[in-house]
Amino acid sequence: MWREDIRASVAHSRMLGAQGIIDAKDVAAIEAGLEEIAKEIEENQFEWKTEYEDVHMNIEARLIEKVGEAGKRLHTARSRNDQVATDIRLWTRQALGRVIEQSDRLIAVICARAAEEVDTLMPGYTHLQRAQPIRLALHLLAWCEMLERDRGRYHDTIVRLNECPLGAAALAGTSFPIDREATARELGFRQPTRNSIDAVSDRDFLLESLAALAIQAVHLSRMAEELVLWSTQEFGFVEMADRFATGSSIMPQKKNPDMAELIRGKAGRVIGDLVNLLVVMKGLPLAYNRDMQEDKFPIFDAFDTVEQSLAIMRGMVATLVFRRERMRKALDEGFIEATEIADWLTRRGVPFRESHQIVGKIVRFAMAQGKKLSDLSLDEFKEFSPLFDASIYEIMLPERVVELKQSLGGTAKEQVLALLSDFHSRLLDRGIQPEEVWRAERKQE
Amino acid sequence: MWREDIRASVAHSRMLGAQGIIDAKDVAAIEAGLEEIAKEIEENQFEWKTEYEDVHMNIEARLIEKVGEAGKRLHTARSRNDQVATDIRLWTRQALGRVIEQSDRLIAVICARAAEEVDTLMPGYTHLQRAQPIRLALHLLAWCEMLERDRGRYHDTIVRLNECPLGAAALAGTSFPIDREATARELGFRQPTRNSIDAVSDRDFLLESLAALAIQAVHLSRMAEELVLWSTQEFGFVEMADRFATGSSIMPQKKNPDMAELIRGKAGRVIGDLVNLLVVMKGLPLAYNRDMQEDKFPIFDAFDTVEQSLAIMRGMVATLVFRRERMRKALDEGFIEATEIADWLTRRGVPFRESHQIVGKIVRFAMAQGKKLSDLSLDEFKEFSPLFDASIYEIMLPERVVELKQSLGGTAKEQVLALLSDFHSRLLDRGIQPEEVWRAERKQE
Amino acid sequence: MWREDIRASVAHSRMLGAQGIIDAKDVAAIEAGLEEIAKEIEENQFEWKTEYEDVHMNIEARLIEKVGEAGKRLHTARSRNDQVATDIRLWTRQALGRVIEQSDRLIAVICARAAEEVDTLMPGYTHLQRAQPIRLALHLLAWCEMLERDRGRYHDTIVRLNECPLGAAALAGTSFPIDREATARELGFRQPTRNSIDAVSDRDFLLESLAALAIQAVHLSRMAEELVLWSTQEFGFVEMADRFATGSSIMPQKKNPDMAELIRGKAGRVIGDLVNLLVVMKGLPLAYNRDMQEDKFPIFDAFDTVEQSLAIMRGMVATLVFRRERMRKALDEGFIEATEIADWLTRRGVPFRESHQIVGKIVRFAMAQGKKLSDLSLDEFKEFSPLFDASIYEIMLPERVVELKQSLGGTAKEQVLALLSDFHSRLLDRGIQPEEVWRAERKQE
Amino acid sequence: MWREDIRASVAHSRMLGAQGIIDAKDVAAIEAGLEEIAKEIEENQFEWKTEYEDVHMNIEARLIEKVGEAGKRLHTARSRNDQVATDIRLWTRQALGRVIEQSDRLIAVICARAAEEVDTLMPGYTHLQRAQPIRLALHLLAWCEMLERDRGRYHDTIVRLNECPLGAAALAGTSFPIDREATARELGFRQPTRNSIDAVSDRDFLLESLAALAIQAVHLSRMAEELVLWSTQEFGFVEMADRFATGSSIMPQKKNPDMAELIRGKAGRVIGDLVNLLVVMKGLPLAYNRDMQEDKFPIFDAFDTVEQSLAIMRGMVATLVFRRERMRKALDEGFIEATEIADWLTRRGVPFRESHQIVGKIVRFAMAQGKKLSDLSLDEFKEFSPLFDASIYEIMLPERVVELKQSLGGTAKEQVLALLSDFHSRLLDRGIQPEEVWRAERKQE
Repeated sequence: MWREDIRASVAHSRMLGAQGIIDAKDVAAIEAGLEEIAKEIEENQFEWKTEYEDVHMNIEARLIEKVGEAGKRLHTARSRNDQVATDIRLWTRQALGRVIEQSDRLIAVICARAAEEVDTLMPGYTHLQRAQPIRLALHLLAWCEMLERDRGRYHDTIVRLNECPLGAAALAGTSFPIDREATARELGFRQPTRNSIDAVSDRDFLLESLAALAIQAVHLSRMAEELVLWSTQEFGFVEMADRFATGSSIMPQKKNPDMAELIRGKAGRVIGDLVNLLVVMKGLPLAYNRDMQEDKFPIFDAFDTVEQSLAIMRGMVATLVFRRERMRKALDEGFIEATEIADWLTRRGVPFRESHQIVGKIVRFAMAQGKKLSDLSLDEFKEFSPLFDASIYEIMLPERVVELKQSLGGTAKEQVLALLSDFHSRLLDRGIQPEEVWRAERKQE
Repeated sequence: MWREDIRASVAHSRMLGAQGIIDAKDVAAIEAGLEEIAKEIEENQFEWKTEYEDVHMNIEARLIEKVGEAGKRLHTARSRNDQVATDIRLWTRQALGRVIEQSDRLIAVICARAAEEVDTLMPGYTHLQRAQPIRLALHLLAWCEMLERDRGRYHDTIVRLNECPLGAAALAGTSFPIDREATARELGFRQPTRNSIDAVSDRDFLLESLAALAIQAVHLSRMAEELVLWSTQEFGFVEMADRFATGSSIMPQKKNPDMAELIRGKAGRVIGDLVNLLVVMKGLPLAYNRDMQEDKFPIFDAFDTVEQSLAIMRGMVATLVFRRERMRKALDEGFIEATEIADWLTRRGVPFRESHQIVGKIVRFAMAQGKKLSDLSLDEFKEFSPLFDASIYEIMLPERVVELKQSLGGTAKEQVLALLSDFHSRLLDRGIQPEEVWRAERKQE
Repeated sequence: MWREDIRASVAHSRMLGAQGIIDAKDVAAIEAGLEEIAKEIEENQFEWKTEYEDVHMNIEARLIEKVGEAGKRLHTARSRNDQVATDIRLWTRQALGRVIEQSDRLIAVICARAAEEVDTLMPGYTHLQRAQPIRLALHLLAWCEMLERDRGRYHDTIVRLNECPLGAAALAGTSFPIDREATARELGFRQPTRNSIDAVSDRDFLLESLAALAIQAVHLSRMAEELVLWSTQEFGFVEMADRFATGSSIMPQKKNPDMAELIRGKAGRVIGDLVNLLVVMKGLPLAYNRDMQEDKFPIFDAFDTVEQSLAIMRGMVATLVFRRERMRKALDEGFIEATEIADWLTRRGVPFRESHQIVGKIVRFAMAQGKKLSDLSLDEFKEFSPLFDASIYEIMLPERVVELKQSLGGTAKEQVLALLSDFHSRLLDRGIQPEEVWRAERKQE
Repeated sequence: MWREDIRASVAHSRMLGAQGIIDAKDVAAIEAGLEEIAKEIEENQFEWKTEYEDVHMNIEARLIEKVGEAGKRLHTARSRNDQVATDIRLWTRQALGRVIEQSDRLIAVICARAAEEVDTLMPGYTHLQRAQPIRLALHLLAWCEMLERDRGRYHDTIVRLNECPLGAAALAGTSFPIDREATARELGFRQPTRNSIDAVSDRDFLLESLAALAIQAVHLSRMAEELVLWSTQEFGFVEMADRFATGSSIMPQKKNPDMAELIRGKAGRVIGDLVNLLVVMKGLPLAYNRDMQEDKFPIFDAFDTVEQSLAIMRGMVATLVFRRERMRKALDEGFIEATEIADWLTRRGVPFRESHQIVGKIVRFAMAQGKKLSDLSLDEFKEFSPLFDASIYEIMLPERVVELKQSLGGTAKEQVLALLSDFHSRLLDRGIQPEEVWRAERKQE
């Protein structure tokens, strides 16, 4: 957080100068000194001393060493409480920007893959049971919806945190004639915080960030779970690129989806980080308490973990091989055209609940015979309802079933293409070219 | 959730009628039947049967009992998956509206109290140590800032959840020519959800609600902690109204702040509810899984708990007696004018860090002598810095110290009045008259 | 908790009588009165009044109504603090006994099933990839190991909680000449608690119970996950009995493993309960605080949830159909004899790491040819190592591979039978006949 | 964990040698090689390479580099799954030993302090309201009870984890004629684990450790909360040694109890670690999954955090100054003799509930008059009950009240001394001399 600390100190000292609280010479000395310190840290030449408790005190001590009296004036009209609160808001705003971008890039790769798989059919699952045929693309785009909402939550968190606590001092404000609007503006905040006590007691922006990160980590765990399942010999829908899988030390034939498993596991870590800070804040009286220093560990850890998970997931999705023939085969083994037959009857006037019962009987009959529905003769169908005619066979093909689902957001091609095109526009608006992001990932192979 | 279920079913059947999927007669029968059922439930005449698994099936079964064939057509072009998702979004949207209103009413009462206490001074605390004199009103308004952010989070959650999943059917959409825009509109949603798989797999709006509720519960626990502390004989800053305190079964002299303790404890419950659903959703493959039925318990429990806590806190704050003399006395016992003396020196050219050290020595000197700072003679002050003159005594009065903190959001009267007036306008804009809410609460005594 | 309250009150009043603190007549009146009250409650004739805050006060008030003065003497030398602490320990001890018994009964059913499936082979999985052939029985017995540890934790919790707080009074003990040993003995506690302040501040036994319950809920979620997986069309290893599965409202052909999904989901609930109480207790000063009244909700909820899950899991396992042919088929499709071939080479002097590499190459060669390992000719094998001879084909049969793993706890028949027999003895020692428990469950079909 | 890995490898290779699976020369080479590697690591000369995924592979690769073929034989008859499970059990057993010892040393210091404060009286609190006079020593010993239970939980966890998974191999055991009893014995385990699948799937010992650590962290947060409260100017019961407190950057007079606040906050971290691993394990199918690699982070973090907190708490308690006069003063300001007066009446035949009401009226009367109870005249007392006589004044002295509470575990001196003596014996049995531990801590000042 040293970057943020220096940036905020520069803004503070400029404001002190502009308000005549310290003189221009001091401002210049402070600014030059801080720049040098930044360079020292950047180049790993800065000696961090534990006798100065934290980053902030280390930098100030070094500044005084470098520029003398001027350095001792930097802390005029501020306290460590508002300084820390400002630094951590700057850091978090930046970090939220990063996870937004990472989310966008993952969306981009998924969209690129979905665009290629518009005609790939697979079973859609509920309760992990084959339910109805769907387009793989629609399933992949469901992941994008989750990521879009994550993005939205990050964005809202930025808007809410974007107020500057600098100038709240210890908790009550200051008697120096400071200009809080000026520092807020220089640091890119929408406005100063409104209440000096709240300014130093509040860590909502961290709790809100952690909650959004935990929800995204859960999303990633759901995708990861699907990739683990799809990688099994039993499903066999995908094959991972080698760099995302590992062999076994004792079973040379295995290709373990390690990276997907790790991402799934890491949901625990981010949820743990959220719980950590909620517990820390529970029951704390105002204003600042040292317990709040414990905010840094979970927030750094959670952002790191989610950023890594997003990057790995991006690479993994980019390089997956979809085994279309296995997906197609799975479609043929179930009775996943059953709903469509019930709907066919309903369209012919049978009340929905009755159609449902009729088809239930047909399925049980077919299972008992060891047949697929399409193997039944028209006479057999007619046993269950006289309404059946030869057109019923037309809707038993998965290719036909998916095309019938023309309702908005359904699995018909037109609907899927519309969704894809919408995501494409959004990404372009954000300066992202899906195909390029995908290509960049594949190059690493 | 039966209200939401009936409301959504009415909208669905009207749309089916408008699209010609069922005929007008059926629509009328369904609507009339559902109205009667609503009345039956309202009047406790409805017989819930466990053989029908849930609310939705109970209502549909009763409808078929009442209106026959038409009832069997209601479920055309929908599935329990999209039906449940719609009902729970309707319920949650409503519940979020309620906690927003409850937050506003608590803000109103706090503002009313703050307005009366603008001239009440107390020590501001950091690390639970007396730090600087502040206005009680500024401290109370810090609570309002927390509640305003809670409100903002609830609002953002409403915006994000306000899409209608009805018509996604089981997971893939439907082959009936439904009009999802129409049902979305009728049910007050901004638009239909975009992806039918996501529509039935997504519970983000519940996770986001729970996170916002947990953060508010933590806020309430912080206020409650302060009320518990302030109620101790040691602090003695407030006295609770009898209905929020209880005596002891064995110690008749005690007045225990039970309601504040309960609110503090209930943070655990809401955090537990949040963890519950995060764990449920972790690693679930798409689309619907029965685990997700476990979403109802934590969401009902968390909304109930927070609504109750808000209501109790409102009554408790409305009826607190502030013991101004005890607060004032606490101001005289510390050395909380020390910062101001350091700032006085800094304004006279001593670098801040040096002023700080000088005042540190003065405080230690006074403590050793068993004196307050204002008891030291000017000569004694001059021992530490020749810059001191008689004007230093002027800033040792708490009344004077608070007035010096004129920075934006600081504890000077003008700043506090500005904040109060801003909250007042916001509340009026939301149709809330602070004084009236306060009066209403006090009437219950 | 009324039963525990009455039981503890009877013990308390007897002790007061024995010590001459109240007279024998009063003891008799109190005891008779409490017995009547117990009957009233049992028969639903007791009128609970909200003006008496809780169960304890309701019972005492009714007692005074019934027996007058004597009733007013019952609370002599005790406080609600030690009374509540005693009641909740009694309740929890009982509840722990119940989950121990339920765990045993689940172990019994699993053992009964395992005994029948000793010769059933299936793939053992790591990373959800087929790894090595194992006996289904060994896998089922791994579940029993988890349940045995759960049992051990419950038992340790009972031992640690089994001290009686009665007589600690509000927090400091009492000036009446009570006999705490006597009440402890009568209530079946090992001894009185040692420190009166700790006696009323401590809720460790609840935290420890919740932790043990959460760990068991996680175990149940792991078993449930496996049942969900094994129920998929892709795995097809088991079929659920109808009462543990449900059809779909729109897809008549599906058989959803709802009960397994619910058990999996309920892990969230129990983990949430644990977090709840940890948060409640965090940072609470001694001795009693009202926050601690929030202990009841999570503890009741967690015990209920786990008891239900254990009972459902027992029924579900008892009535599962194992589809042995599908498991056997899965064995033939992988390369799960690879490890055995590597070990074969190692036994012939090839260093393990080299054997591993050699077999890796063979597997890749076979995959490229679309062959199984057993399809390769001896010449082909010899290409990779001259050590190979015809005996290599003997170890490629799953039946042979499992028999080779003779190490303690391995999958060879003798090892599995030894484990089974050990569990059988343990259960008999606990008075449980596995076959009978299984039979009882199947009868419900 | 490298130490554990080497130790387990040595035991494994010796067993392989003893069983004739590898020859004696290889055993000697492996052992010598591993010793050298241990030395390299110890002396920071070991080059960790990221291409070898983890500690285990790094060590094996280096071994092969050093000793060639023999090194390639080390992994015979084991897999990374049982190797990792063994290493982490060894590590955890050690770490549990450390927190047991740290708990004992904290108990020792608290006991030493309590022994000096047997005659110090203070108010005992419930609901943070002054309730009854107690001995400070009894309060301090209540902390020791918590720590004793923590110790017990750690001990039970060691007993349950103390089984050796080595030899379970990947999940099914091995075809080599290994001797699992031998390795278990050599590594100090009670016995080998019983089921090879469970051996590699189980992380209960980590969950159980984390639960015990979280409960202890909550205990430490409760003690820390009390130290923070007692350090306020309002309570003023203790003063922290300088090294556990810090000044403020802007308020030179403050002495903030930073270390106590940090310990309080760190409860969040440990609870977060527990939640982390519970979430990781939720819903994982058997046997090993890579998610489980996420177990290391929370377990290392939680042990570190609790060990640090215990050490800091020990130093803090050792160096606290108890301000006896402030505690005594607090006793005089309440009405904390009220219970005793009610008991006095009860001993004279007034039913307890009536005594309670009578004393309630007396207290209210005294409060209205602005008097203490001891200021009331005997006539005034007689107004409330004719039973009062002059002896009532004797029990109003706190010194007398505490001595009346002679019940087992009560606050009378004899009871407190008995408790102290019991702790003293226990500590001596564990080889700990309380006074010495205390002295050692004070020396650091």
